[in-house]
Parts: sequence; structure tokens; C-alpha cells
Amino acid sequence: MNRKLKLLIEYEGTQYHGWQVQSNGITIQEILQATFEKITRRKSTVIASGRTDAGVHAEGQVAHISTPSKLSCRELLMGLNGLLPRDIAVLEVVEAAADFHAQKSAVRKIYRYTILNRPYPSAMNYRRSLFIQSPLNIASMKRAAKYLQGRHDFSAFRASNCSARSPIRELFKVEITNAQDFIYLHFDGDGFLKHMVRNLVGTLIQVGRGTMKPKQVLEILESRNRNKAGPTAQPHGLCLVKVIYDE
Amino acid sequence: MNRKLKLLIEYEGTQYHGWQVQSNGITIQEILQATFEKITRRKSTVIASGRTDAGVHAEGQVAHISTPSKLSCRELLMGLNGLLPRDIAVLEVVEAAADFHAQKSAVRKIYRYTILNRPYPSAMNYRRSLFIQSPLNIASMKRAAKYLQGRHDFSAFRASNCSARSPIRELFKVEITNAQDFIYLHFDGDGFLKHMVRNLVGTLIQVGRGTMKPKQVLEILESRNRNKAGPTAQPHGLCLVKVIYDE
Repeated sequence: MNRKLKLLIEYEGTQYHGWQVQSNGITIQEILQATFEKITRRKSTVIASGRTDAGVHAEGQVAHISTPSKLSCRELLMGLNGLLPRDIAVLEVVEAAADFHAQKSAVRKIYRYTILNRPYPSAMNYRRSLFIQSPLNIASMKRAAKYLQGRHDFSAFRASNCSARSPIRELFKVEITNAQDFIYLHFDGDGFLKHMVRNLVGTLIQVGRGTMKPKQVLEILESRNRNKAGPTAQPHGLCLVKVIYDE
Repeated sequence: MNRKLKLLIEYEGTQYHGWQVQSNGITIQEILQATFEKITRRKSTVIASGRTDAGVHAEGQVAHISTPSKLSCRELLMGLNGLLPRDIAVLEVVEAAADFHAQKSAVRKIYRYTILNRPYPSAMNYRRSLFIQSPLNIASMKRAAKYLQGRHDFSAFRASNCSARSPIRELFKVEITNAQDFIYLHFDGDGFLKHMVRNLVGTLIQVGRGTMKPKQVLEILESRNRNKAGPTAQPHGLCLVKVIYDE
């Protein structure tokens, strides 16, 4: 008889080819599955709330696993962390309802994109922030961000190979904050299309640079045309902060 | 005619064999000197406020250099950061008085040691904090820290091969704070002997674990006997925060 477990996972994505198992590089899912197998001596699949791209980080990825293991949650937590590489950590292992599904049960996700905006880089934060030397206009970025909030067809900000059935998503909040020389772009939504956050960030950066007016973000959104939006921002500034479930 | 320049430097020490040039590994000093040479086409020595051990980080290392280069401070800042590896960053380049000496003119230094104290590790912070699973008694550590403040003979906390002439140092403040699951040990003093901070931390950790009473730290200090103190704490939790000069 299998138990369903819910895991809260933190990772620094720098060294990995993203979450999902693939042939051309080491992935976080693969490492977790192999570590689980070492402990429980059974092959098992670890299903996450969603894939993260190569180089993207997570402070609060959620995954589930179905296992016949009799080990306690605490034993699994200690065992997994004892064997995992140091850039992947399991923060929590709890029993989940039999019908819990890390991806399908997720109702909301929060991402944060970090930009370091000053003339010189940071040796401490380079793995987790995009360094932009020229000053960005944060007020313009905030105005542009407002147009993105709400329920929209995000086709203009969707990767060409995105496999989602519908391009409609709701962004409950797009907020831009800053502290010291860092600019944080917070995205809180019911779901995200492939590369959606990075494409939104790439476009907001163009607004910040002044090469695009805030209002143009609305035009791009309404055009549903990917070619009009900015480039896909680099992955290392992105972090999956939290996945929310109806309890 | 040479100019004297003062540099403010940040580095993540993980990949380096410490500050000072040596034969058995790549050091931060060596990388900075080579980068300076590329830009100015002259060999120059970069003198820091003091060495940092292999694996120790710095948010505010200070160094000086004497150079005939006519490049502006801004050009040097941009040039250096453009060529340096991403785990070393120059935060500031300013003109200094001819008699400024990063080591000899320093009057005060601040170090911080970071401990992550909870049952599970952190994927985001493992390079910069010592992970201790068993709960530490912070109140005891604070009591012990008080004995260390002031002007003392720190022979008990000095590496056996320390070459400093005097073992007398003044600690203006030893403060222990905590936030979330992190414990921060702040050391503010007029100078530090070799391995002194790490030996103090190793001893305070024993107090936190309850294997040593707070009062014993005073006895160890007074004994001047290195064999009575705790082990040298690992380098990766340590960071040189700030070097202070009389202006």
C-alpha cells in the first residue's frame, strides 16, 4: 500500500538542466529520484508543481511522491538531505492526501525575478540575479507591470514550443520593488506558460531601459504576437518562491 | 609618477586558496594582480588589509595598489569587473593618499560568522553558512561571548603558526544575533590573529552545544593555551564585512 508524500524543495539551479529528467544533462528531478531510490530501494517518480528551466532556482518547489516506504517523514527528510548534493535541499516532508497532485492541485504560484542594477557587479549574488549596468527606470517598469495584471491571453509572452492547451492565465499581482541596488519583480498568478515570466521580464527590462514605452506592453499583450515582446530574460535571475494549494 | 589607489573588494572565497598568492592554488590576490596587469600593462602588487583563509568570503576587503596608469577610477572599476571572474567584484576604486597602506593604516575590522541551525540544510546558503543540525543554545553563547570583549591576550585562540608579534588584541564588540534559522556571530576588533575568529567560533559552538559552560571561555582565554579552546570552525561561514581606517 503506497503513501503519498508532499515535499517542499529548495534548489540553486545553476548546475542543472532544469527540473525535468532529460537526456542531455543532469536535472533536479533525476537527482531526487535517484536519492529516493537509494533510501527506499524502490524506483519512484517525483512529480513537481511544474518544470523549472535550466538555471532557474526554487525556494519553494513542491513535489509529490507515492511510495511504499515505511520510513517516517522525519527519517526521509534527514536521509534525503544527507545524500543530496548541497545545491538541492528538502525543507519539508509531510503526508499528503491520496488525491494530492503537486501539479494538478496547485492553484497559485509565486515567482520572483532579481535584477542587480548598478555600475558594478556582485560576487555574492551573481548566481541569483541578472546584472544590468545601465540604470533602469523603475517607475516606468511599475506602470508597465500594471497592464499585465488580470486575466489575459498571454500568447505574446509564451515560448513557441509551449504545450499548454490554453494561453489564458490570470496574474493576481505583478509587483516591482527595490532595495539597495536590487530590483525585484514579483509575479503571482494561477499558472504560467512556458518562459512566460522570463518573457515578461525581458519586456519590462526594455521598458526600464527606455527602449519601449510602458503603454506598449499593453499593445504587445493585445497583439498576442510573441515577436513583438522583448527577449527571454536569462534564467539565473528567476526563482520559484511558492506554490499554493487549496487545503 | 605612481598614484595610490584604494579598492573595495567583494569575493566569494569558495573557489580560492585564500587571499594571498601561494604556490599550491589560485588566490584572490593573484587574480586581481593579473587582471590589473592586463588593463594597465604593468606588474603591480595588490596589498590587502589582511589575508583571508582559503574558503573565507569578503563583502568589504580593502586593498591598495600603486600604479602609473592614467586611467580614471571609473575606467579601472569597469575594466577590472569586466575581466574578473564572477566570484570576485571590485565595488569601488578611489584615489588614496600617498601614505595610505591597506594593512598598516587599518584601525578596525569587522567579521561575521554565519551558522544555519535547524534540522535541514539550505541549498541557497550552503556556501556561506556552517550548517549545524542540533539546536544550539544561543543564550549560553551570548553569555560566553561577553567574556571575549575587551583587550586580552588571545594566545588560546591563535593558530600555532601565527606570525603576529603580539597576541594582544582588543575586541570592541562580540555580538550574537539570530534571524529565522540563522545565527550570526559579529566580531568587531582592532585586529585579529591567525584563525582567531574561527577558533573563537569553534569554542562558542561548543558552548552552544552544551559541551562547554559559558564561564569556561573565560578560563580558556586566561589559560592562553590553544589546546583548551574548541576546534577551528570551517572557513565557509566566515566573512570579512568591513575594514575601517582613520580618515
